[in-house]
Amino acid sequence: MISVVIVGTGNVAQNLYHAFKKSSEINIKQVIGRNREHLAFVQNKALISTDFSNNITADVYILAVSDDAISAVAQKFKGIDGVLAHTSGATSLDAIKFAQRPGIFYPLQTFTIGKIISLDTIPLCLEATNSKDLNILKTLGNQLSKSVLEVNSEQRKTLHVAAVFVNNFTNYMYTMGSEICAAHNIDFSLLKPLIKETASKLDTLTPIQAQTGPAKRGDQKTLHNHLQIIKDKHQRELYTLLSNAIKEKHGKEL
Amino acid sequence: MISVVIVGTGNVAQNLYHAFKKSSEINIKQVIGRNREHLAFVQNKALISTDFSNNITADVYILAVSDDAISAVAQKFKGIDGVLAHTSGATSLDAIKFAQRPGIFYPLQTFTIGKIISLDTIPLCLEATNSKDLNILKTLGNQLSKSVLEVNSEQRKTLHVAAVFVNNFTNYMYTMGSEICAAHNIDFSLLKPLIKETASKLDTLTPIQAQTGPAKRGDQKTLHNHLQIIKDKHQRELYTLLSNAIKEKHGKEL
Repeated sequence: MISVVIVGTGNVAQNLYHAFKKSSEINIKQVIGRNREHLAFVQNKALISTDFSNNITADVYILAVSDDAISAVAQKFKGIDGVLAHTSGATSLDAIKFAQRPGIFYPLQTFTIGKIISLDTIPLCLEATNSKDLNILKTLGNQLSKSVLEVNSEQRKTLHVAAVFVNNFTNYMYTMGSEICAAHNIDFSLLKPLIKETASKLDTLTPIQAQTGPAKRGDQKTLHNHLQIIKDKHQRELYTLLSNAIKEKHGKEL
Repeated sequence: MISVVIVGTGNVAQNLYHAFKKSSEINIKQVIGRNREHLAFVQNKALISTDFSNNITADVYILAVSDDAISAVAQKFKGIDGVLAHTSGATSLDAIKFAQRPGIFYPLQTFTIGKIISLDTIPLCLEATNSKDLNILKTLGNQLSKSVLEVNSEQRKTLHVAAVFVNNFTNYMYTMGSEICAAHNIDFSLLKPLIKETASKLDTLTPIQAQTGPAKRGDQKTLHNHLQIIKDKHQRELYTLLSNAIKEKHGKEL
């Protein structure tokens, strides 16, 4: 049995709470947040606390707060005896090095407000300053996911940058697609099977192998025709930039 | 019972062949390609033909050839009595208007060599010059997919542009992510659950609602840190451009 305290009320805190709750090997001792209303997701109301200067002992304190708040909130827990682990991809271990036993418990996933997803296959990227603390985090992680790995702060930051490309920027491409549809009164949901399959292709292909389209083929006629259709200046610039990048990557010349 | 001839041997031809074959209401009368070896996917060898000047009658001739070849190949079939429908998102009906009964049968999906996928939920975008021909294409489409719709050439071209953003450009974001991982000896497959969930979020959210990340939050510190990690000039430019675009879209200022 491993005991945890969750600090935070956002998407990560909520998803971890539900995942921890499912394991008979994990004892959630407390969930702490500033705002009692934001703690409504905690079904067992006895676990709720708004007191950050608590004295409850636990093996692990999960600090699932926004990047900006990590250091300040961690300060309130620096006296605790358990492992104090933040959940940020972009924040180094150094940000909480004043803690007695600093650690990182970073789930490499995008979380949506109000949507609880399975963490079963989500990489949990762990870091600690010694093997004992690392093993405690591993014990906790193994209860949630098949993919638990030690990742140092530099690797984790790199993963986070790559995640920005495949998640944040990909989603922005979806935004562009939806705006193009909206401008022509076309239902964006028609593109959803394509979006799903674009992601699924990576089950069997590398992104380089999976690349298709007019830029990849060097199909100047279609590239030209598309630029006739796109009226928005920003979308035109993006279309040209990314088409040229794909052409260059795949060895086609303008 | 509706009878079809398939012209072409690529990913679209192969996927349509397998989808047609599954329906007891569709009679594949012939599959025509230039190269007998490329026709190996056709299990019933009696259907294979390399003769484009054929005289087989069918309700629909599916012209699943590359965009550049559509007009030239269609010329060989201009005397036929059935509906002659190409499968391209980027090519207008006008490209084959010399046919007696031109049509379009465009599956809005990305097809991968050697991968046969279900067309069950794939939008089939149809166009014809009269309601009789449109109904024949609908009858055929309804055998394959729940999502069969009439889409005129202009709408279809717009859908194709939007598809380039959500598929081609999204895949390029995956390429960038994989290159960043490779440069730091990190296993790109760690990002695959994130990639899948990024696509799945659109089941319940619009892309604007689904946007997350440092640019959306206006988190200057992380944006700055990420640019320290990205060494490749092109990746840096892309990171800056897309982060600024997201910030602008979501009302945050630099």
